[in-house]
Amino acid sequence: MKIHNLLVHLHNNVDAFALKPRHLDLIRGMLPDARISIAEGNSDFLDRLPAADCALTWVFKPGWYEGAPRLKALFTPAAGHDWVAADPTGRVKTFYGSFHGRIMRESLLAMMLHFNRHVGKSLSDQQGRIWDRPGYSECVALFSQRVLIVGFGSLGRSMAELLAAFGARITAVKRDTRGFEGAPHVDNVIPFGSLEEELPYADHVVLVLPGGAETDGIFTQRHFTAMKPGAYLYNLGRGNCYQEEDLLSALKTGPLVGAGLDVFAEEPLPPASALWEQPNVVITPHSSAISREYLDLFIHEWVGILREM
Amino acid sequence: MKIHNLLVHLHNNVDAFALKPRHLDLIRGMLPDARISIAEGNSDFLDRLPAADCALTWVFKPGWYEGAPRLKALFTPAAGHDWVAADPTGRVKTFYGSFHGRIMRESLLAMMLHFNRHVGKSLSDQQGRIWDRPGYSECVALFSQRVLIVGFGSLGRSMAELLAAFGARITAVKRDTRGFEGAPHVDNVIPFGSLEEELPYADHVVLVLPGGAETDGIFTQRHFTAMKPGAYLYNLGRGNCYQEEDLLSALKTGPLVGAGLDVFAEEPLPPASALWEQPNVVITPHSSAISREYLDLFIHEWVGILREM
Repeated sequence: MKIHNLLVHLHNNVDAFALKPRHLDLIRGMLPDARISIAEGNSDFLDRLPAADCALTWVFKPGWYEGAPRLKALFTPAAGHDWVAADPTGRVKTFYGSFHGRIMRESLLAMMLHFNRHVGKSLSDQQGRIWDRPGYSECVALFSQRVLIVGFGSLGRSMAELLAAFGARITAVKRDTRGFEGAPHVDNVIPFGSLEEELPYADHVVLVLPGGAETDGIFTQRHFTAMKPGAYLYNLGRGNCYQEEDLLSALKTGPLVGAGLDVFAEEPLPPASALWEQPNVVITPHSSAISREYLDLFIHEWVGILREM
Repeated sequence: MKIHNLLVHLHNNVDAFALKPRHLDLIRGMLPDARISIAEGNSDFLDRLPAADCALTWVFKPGWYEGAPRLKALFTPAAGHDWVAADPTGRVKTFYGSFHGRIMRESLLAMMLHFNRHVGKSLSDQQGRIWDRPGYSECVALFSQRVLIVGFGSLGRSMAELLAAFGARITAVKRDTRGFEGAPHVDNVIPFGSLEEELPYADHVVLVLPGGAETDGIFTQRHFTAMKPGAYLYNLGRGNCYQEEDLLSALKTGPLVGAGLDVFAEEPLPPASALWEQPNVVITPHSSAISREYLDLFIHEWVGILREM
């Protein structure tokens, strides 16, 4: 696709998500003939939108398409569809980033290895200058464990690739398993209806489901109850997929012994939430994809798509 | 090798290092015709030693070979040569475990990802119920970083394999680089003499050197000074390879911003050591290889060697 007027609107209060001079240099180098304009804010973006044939943006509301008669393609670095609405008329193509898995799988592994290697104990013992070597006998290695990845889109597949390098045995859960019979890195791909039968065997259960009505409360109390005693749960998808009371109950009375939580029903997680104070829970503020390389990955992905359009 | 009298002496105050009934069942299944005796302690071990043609043990002192006229092979699960002396006459073959890398690389990654993903901040913010999303902008991913592995034996190679799966760029340092020109998973293998030139480029420096006179103080103050500002150091080998004052100084005034330390000049690390209180240092008590699977891996490795003898 040949671009004449590129409109860039990549402001963000997370610095790693905001356009830097190096990104602009990269874009200018890729599109030497295009006019590139940088929006100062939402209002400026809307003023410049009528002339744009392509836009890079964190936010785009449904009504904005009417003011974008020349727009052909819209690219957002976000993985989720929360901030950028697809064009209801279908005229403008909307592209959501699919590079996040490479970052998020490192966040997932940080949590898993924190639990497996008892890093919390190390930090606590260090405060007391305690050298307790026998106290690590219950550490366990990922290569002897089973991981269940619930949601097998680009995020789940990227996570599976890395977990397989550790030697973990992986089962993936997908709404529609067709075409995934011989998927690499995983032992098998099962439909969501079989999840309950697999849960008793998983040492780690990773939820990477998209938000929306289709996943609201999809991981039920029955699913929590079916989990293996001593298992860990991770949620790096969206906070709508279970009732947090069910998660809390599974943490307090079993079968869960810990959780790594990046997303919540309400964000920011309210100060009054009992999740903050659960032992063996690691809470991160919807930050599992935040990393210095974020926009570099986005721009490289965008350029790759442009070349093929 | 056909074994008639196997002597097993695998007691340890670390439970993960002590023989369990499942291990004994495994051994009995592998050697249905052998007599297997389990030593109660060092004295009982020495009493039973004259009849043994093979021994599995955590400890073997140089003088004990004289009381072992039938002994042909000695296997220890330890990676280091600290507790089991080789036979000075060369009559008895001594085998040290080489399976540790699979466990220790998970310990290494737990530390690296702890630092890269700012897990310390997450745990601290959690205490105060603080949701600070912009505060993660300096997180960084291993796939954009360089790792220098100093010591490229079986441990270093196993670590390189996993780090390569993350996409990290890896340089390995080996005393003798011959035969390692095209080593897999690493960008290059350099001799120890070139270490100082590579240090300014490494985000993570991993020391996995054996102990002994040859490595005493081999990582000097000049090496610390040459490191990249903002780099992290890990020591999972032995505590003799640098002066801890040099490490402390590099942590206090740069260029280091953190360290993951599993081994020390004196172990247990004395309560008075200033290392305990350094910010952004993770201390583990020579436990990086401790994991539930430890003796299972050892026994499988031992059986594999027996079959080829």
